[in-house]
Amino acid sequence: MTYCLAAQVDEGLVFASDSRTHAGVDDVSTYRKMHIFEWPGERLLVMLSAGNLATTQAVLRALQRDIDDDGEESLARLETLDAAAAYLGRISVSCQASAAEAAGERSQVSLEATFILGGQIGDQAPAIHLVYPQGNFITVAGEQPFIQIGETQYGKPILDRMIRPGLSLQRAGICALVSLDSTMRSNLSVGPPVDLLLYPRDDLTAACHHRLAAEDPYWLSLRQAWGEGLGRAFDTLPALPGDGISE
Amino acid sequence: MTYCLAAQVDEGLVFASDSRTHAGVDDVSTYRKMHIFEWPGERLLVMLSAGNLATTQAVLRALQRDIDDDGEESLARLETLDAAAAYLGRISVSCQASAAEAAGERSQVSLEATFILGGQIGDQAPAIHLVYPQGNFITVAGEQPFIQIGETQYGKPILDRMIRPGLSLQRAGICALVSLDSTMRSNLSVGPPVDLLLYPRDDLTAACHHRLAAEDPYWLSLRQAWGEGLGRAFDTLPALPGDGISE
Repeated sequence: MTYCLAAQVDEGLVFASDSRTHAGVDDVSTYRKMHIFEWPGERLLVMLSAGNLATTQAVLRALQRDIDDDGEESLARLETLDAAAAYLGRISVSCQASAAEAAGERSQVSLEATFILGGQIGDQAPAIHLVYPQGNFITVAGEQPFIQIGETQYGKPILDRMIRPGLSLQRAGICALVSLDSTMRSNLSVGPPVDLLLYPRDDLTAACHHRLAAEDPYWLSLRQAWGEGLGRAFDTLPALPGDGISE
Repeated sequence: MTYCLAAQVDEGLVFASDSRTHAGVDDVSTYRKMHIFEWPGERLLVMLSAGNLATTQAVLRALQRDIDDDGEESLARLETLDAAAAYLGRISVSCQASAAEAAGERSQVSLEATFILGGQIGDQAPAIHLVYPQGNFITVAGEQPFIQIGETQYGKPILDRMIRPGLSLQRAGICALVSLDSTMRSNLSVGPPVDLLLYPRDDLTAACHHRLAAEDPYWLSLRQAWGEGLGRAFDTLPALPGDGISE
């Protein structure tokens, strides 16, 4: 499985993803799930992917082919992020249909894939979209401005509590790492290394990209600090009233 | 939906459950999901239920009928917790089969139910079992001795971190409440009031039962203290190294 998330705060965008892919517990691999399309100073698009790995790789090849062909319809040329999300949806549906046709009716494997596409084009506002396997999409908005794909539940409570538009970009990135850490502790199908991209609004580059391996010193210090902080928070919770059971 | 959990520590057992039941967002109700069968000084059995509400109520009626009939096979008479879990499994499968027959082949509604059954019989060791819809069961054991049913993922990280055999019964109960709080914040289908039963080993009563409504002062103070503690833990996490993005 997979866990990817993106968040939008006033200062910019955060993208984070794990790297574990598996088809059964004896077929575990590491694949990058964060894909960066960067034209510095002009546009930055970041795609996070979850679902069938063959589908997501076919989609990536199609996106790159359209960029290389330099036609009107590509991530390099489409004029808005909305248009790019709709285009990604069409590519995804088309790749799933081709794979389903090749597989034949007897295949039981899901060929679906889900994507997060975000970034900024020129002087337009930054945005994050969630592209469904059906090809349609939604845009993140509101008081809890984040989107998750894959194994989303374990890491959701910390995002629900912390991610707000006014949170600093740096803190939003740390929150994304904590969410990934909680997920990796509770679900073996999500694993390191972790990709983290902090995108400061109007920067139009992917300069602040971190790739954190399992033994990365910062990652280890973050995990330890969070575990200790949780322990302290837990230790100071009030005792249950009047049940006669001592601490 | 539902969220119930049970944990076993050296000092005893913890049972906790929410009370929300729904069949669509416009059909939300409150039903107790913790069912206590108590013969003080002799035996205590606690059942937590998740799944189809008609099935769980049919199972409850069958269990009560067997107790009232005072036959060999009932929660009052079966000699071990293992035997009680196997018996509950048979009752559950039988109730599901009856309901499926009545519903006919065209029904698409899942009639399945999952149960946690735990407690202590006489001077035997306390134990917790998870009874699957198929009627078979597993027993909690090991270094992370807890079992969850229903919406299990949101509240799992805190249990993974905190529940250990040496944790005090009081602290294990508080951990169960925190796990429920995280789940209720992230998933509207899980809601108050919350039932919490702390069972001290060899007590053979259900004396330490708490029912916490949404506005219960202890519940509110616990939620506030946990939120503040998490905030402090988050605020003290180390900054990302050298990316030039300020706090």
